[in-house]
Amino acid sequence: MTELLTPAELEARLREMGARRYHNLHPFHRLLHSGKCSKGQVQAWALNRYYYQAMVPIKDASLIARCEDPDIRREWRKRLEDHDGSDTGPPEGGGIERWLKLTDGLGLDRQAVISTRLLLPGTRYAVEAYVHFVRERSLLEAIASAMTELFSPQIITERLEGMLSHYDYITDETMSYFRKRPPQAERDANYVLDYVKKHARTPEQQQAVLDALSFKCDVLWAMLDALHHAYVSPGLIPPGAFVPAPGDA
Amino acid sequence: MTELLTPAELEARLREMGARRYHNLHPFHRLLHSGKCSKGQVQAWALNRYYYQAMVPIKDASLIARCEDPDIRREWRKRLEDHDGSDTGPPEGGGIERWLKLTDGLGLDRQAVISTRLLLPGTRYAVEAYVHFVRERSLLEAIASAMTELFSPQIITERLEGMLSHYDYITDETMSYFRKRPPQAERDANYVLDYVKKHARTPEQQQAVLDALSFKCDVLWAMLDALHHAYVSPGLIPPGAFVPAPGDA
Repeated sequence: MTELLTPAELEARLREMGARRYHNLHPFHRLLHSGKCSKGQVQAWALNRYYYQAMVPIKDASLIARCEDPDIRREWRKRLEDHDGSDTGPPEGGGIERWLKLTDGLGLDRQAVISTRLLLPGTRYAVEAYVHFVRERSLLEAIASAMTELFSPQIITERLEGMLSHYDYITDETMSYFRKRPPQAERDANYVLDYVKKHARTPEQQQAVLDALSFKCDVLWAMLDALHHAYVSPGLIPPGAFVPAPGDA
Repeated sequence: MTELLTPAELEARLREMGARRYHNLHPFHRLLHSGKCSKGQVQAWALNRYYYQAMVPIKDASLIARCEDPDIRREWRKRLEDHDGSDTGPPEGGGIERWLKLTDGLGLDRQAVISTRLLLPGTRYAVEAYVHFVRERSLLEAIASAMTELFSPQIITERLEGMLSHYDYITDETMSYFRKRPPQAERDANYVLDYVKKHARTPEQQQAVLDALSFKCDVLWAMLDALHHAYVSPGLIPPGAFVPAPGDA
């Protein structure tokens, strides 16, 4: 990119990228939301996605740890509270605890989930790539990589309704993670969008912001590729990864 | 593991893990070696595997950079020479240059290959996970993770013969990488095996060595999973990745 975009043009390009690249377009999500997944596939999704949830506060603390501006650090700390919970927070705990309610509800052993020993290697590498990106790239790129949340309220609403209506073992209680997330995600995404519109002031910085969103779309997409490959088609589960019980497969 | 193994028992466990987990068992390799890949699939394999080749010296220099023993550093430096070449080395260059002869011979644009912009994200994350492992784990684990070469001379010989006999666009010249590798890999693998047998002196260290080999088997396997998913079955190429020409697909 050689031309400087206005903040509104940059926002339009970012939204356009989300419309083309966000993982709601991945075939696995369409299967999941439309009720076409077996219980074993839903379990595999929840177990693998747990690692992403568990690493989000590590990622966010890595960003805070490299940030010299106390205003940004304070703002970003809300994310730690959302995921890790707090004494004064909601009694159902933070996002990780609520994700474990989902894996509990799906009949997965909680210690096995937390140990991540049944994870797909592809999930692990994609999530770690995200953490390393946030640690190693510029602060602008690290912040921009969180912008996929701009597109998450919609996918979460689709998921909540789709999964509650299609799977009889999914209850409102086990889906509590998804009830809480949309307002948090919206608040966070607006902060990030405002930040990059204000701080990407050269064509190079604007390109870096677009590339950061592209990178993050790739991470989420690759996680679903790994799931789809192992549990849908061709269904090649790598050695050591979660194997659904015969009745759930 | 709670029991201390003899060095010979440790070696037997490592060899047994290779026999069960090395990526020669992956369906993609069977397709590749038996002549069942389309030219586009062979191109995708060579283009993605290029990134692994290109990162090997980065990985090896990372190991040297954290190693206080000049004997190990000197030994490990041979790997840099093998991959990056040297003025006094063979005129056909180091391993990376020879890999590019393969991608040239397959009709891939050399600058596109080197830029890695057409790489599968799953390949990128797996290779980066390997580099980070070598940087962040103990020196013993970093060294042990190179042990997959113990199993590579056999796969390379199978590949050389299989690919030369099955694909008319593969020539002895383009396969020069594979002619050179077996003796190098054998020398390196024997060094690593001797090292871990000597330095893994507690059950915990022996377990760490086994886990390092398991990790590395997962990395190689995940790279082929990503290829198989994108280019074989179900053939879902992620946005932005290499797309074979219609006549080669």
